[in-house]
Amino acid sequence: MAKTAAIVVIGNEILSGKVTDTNSPFLCRELRALGVDVRRIVVVPDDLAAIAEEVAACARTYDYVFTTGGVGPTHDDVTIAAVAHGLQRPLVVHPELQALFETHWADRPETLRRKMASVPAGTQLLLEPSLPIPVLQVDNVYIFPGIPQLLQRKFAAIKERFRESPYWGREVYVTVPESSIAHLLEALLAEFPELQLGSYPQLGHPDYRVKLTLESKDPDYVARACARLLALLPPSCVARVE
Amino acid sequence: MAKTAAIVVIGNEILSGKVTDTNSPFLCRELRALGVDVRRIVVVPDDLAAIAEEVAACARTYDYVFTTGGVGPTHDDVTIAAVAHGLQRPLVVHPELQALFETHWADRPETLRRKMASVPAGTQLLLEPSLPIPVLQVDNVYIFPGIPQLLQRKFAAIKERFRESPYWGREVYVTVPESSIAHLLEALLAEFPELQLGSYPQLGHPDYRVKLTLESKDPDYVARACARLLALLPPSCVARVE
Repeated sequence: MAKTAAIVVIGNEILSGKVTDTNSPFLCRELRALGVDVRRIVVVPDDLAAIAEEVAACARTYDYVFTTGGVGPTHDDVTIAAVAHGLQRPLVVHPELQALFETHWADRPETLRRKMASVPAGTQLLLEPSLPIPVLQVDNVYIFPGIPQLLQRKFAAIKERFRESPYWGREVYVTVPESSIAHLLEALLAEFPELQLGSYPQLGHPDYRVKLTLESKDPDYVARACARLLALLPPSCVARVE
Repeated sequence: MAKTAAIVVIGNEILSGKVTDTNSPFLCRELRALGVDVRRIVVVPDDLAAIAEEVAACARTYDYVFTTGGVGPTHDDVTIAAVAHGLQRPLVVHPELQALFETHWADRPETLRRKMASVPAGTQLLLEPSLPIPVLQVDNVYIFPGIPQLLQRKFAAIKERFRESPYWGREVYVTVPESSIAHLLEALLAEFPELQLGSYPQLGHPDYRVKLTLESKDPDYVARACARLLALLPPSCVARVE
């Protein structure tokens, strides 16, 4: 079984349509390529109780939880306090973080430095050589900033720890509508119940109408399922196989 | 109080990173412009139990729930059955939908037509003149397709029913980091506790470092809060106001 993950995106700016979330699409692509199965994405407002409830539920249910956003110094940055609340841990000043912010933010108010150095008790700092500020890990929760460039840099620095056996996939493009092949897809799944089979109609594409995706962690299983699908489909309706 | 909404996005293709969800950003922008407050977005897999649980929870908590995806004829299209399950209603064949599919899909298998005409008991068809297939409404749940062109067309046809008093906003762009103005934002919120105040750092922008957004349904409140913010900020750090 693949490890599972949830992504909790924090930010009023996403919900009000001012900013389009690019972090969860990035994490979905990266985690899939690492062999991890993302099972849930949730966007919640900058609200301590809402974040805490969602993080707590996801931490119980999935192997990994990734949060993005709400980690800065302003009034709307409540993610770290919310993770502490959700995981029922006190917020404590972390000596290494305190030292970091004493250096970087020497001219800022003491209350701000203290806020930035306060994390849930038991937090581990994932301090890779390439990162000036570490990724925070509390149990199975990994806390990332919302700024895409920073999130991407931080994820790249720690991603190898999540790698497992990859997914293998084939894509079959067909020229007929979904409704005329639905029964063939049912038949394929009856023979290959473990197959991850997707059927995606595309409007206005010149050379196909539906993209079928076949995936599994077993490359032989995918190859056999794909061969069987091509035997089930009328050859004239297959535009291409990739 | 603004009406609240949740968006439930259904689709393995989003979670596996194969497709980027453009429907929830579209709905967030549209609903904000209509004066509706989106409070939650959730992406769940093509799994009946997961969809049912999320739809039921959102229908209890928010004024409106919008689902996208999983309404076609194939094995992975389980949204409508899941909404029925979540709202504890039987799936029943709707005579008007049955007649529509008898016409449009005369050459398709009877089992498929029956699947497409089966909806939760009590479903209303929102059949605008511009739509060949209606939007389905069950209680406060509105069911949309996942194909962006179809979703946008269907939403445009029914959106006026959601309109209420608009949000009013100002944007202030500042040239200093968030950490040096955090205490001023706290002071502003102490005076204007109902203000929706966002603080968004931007990396690598040539003429500002932080975008501040001030919003409310009361235009006078926003104007007064903006004037107060500009009095609190050192004038040299304000790049522009919009």
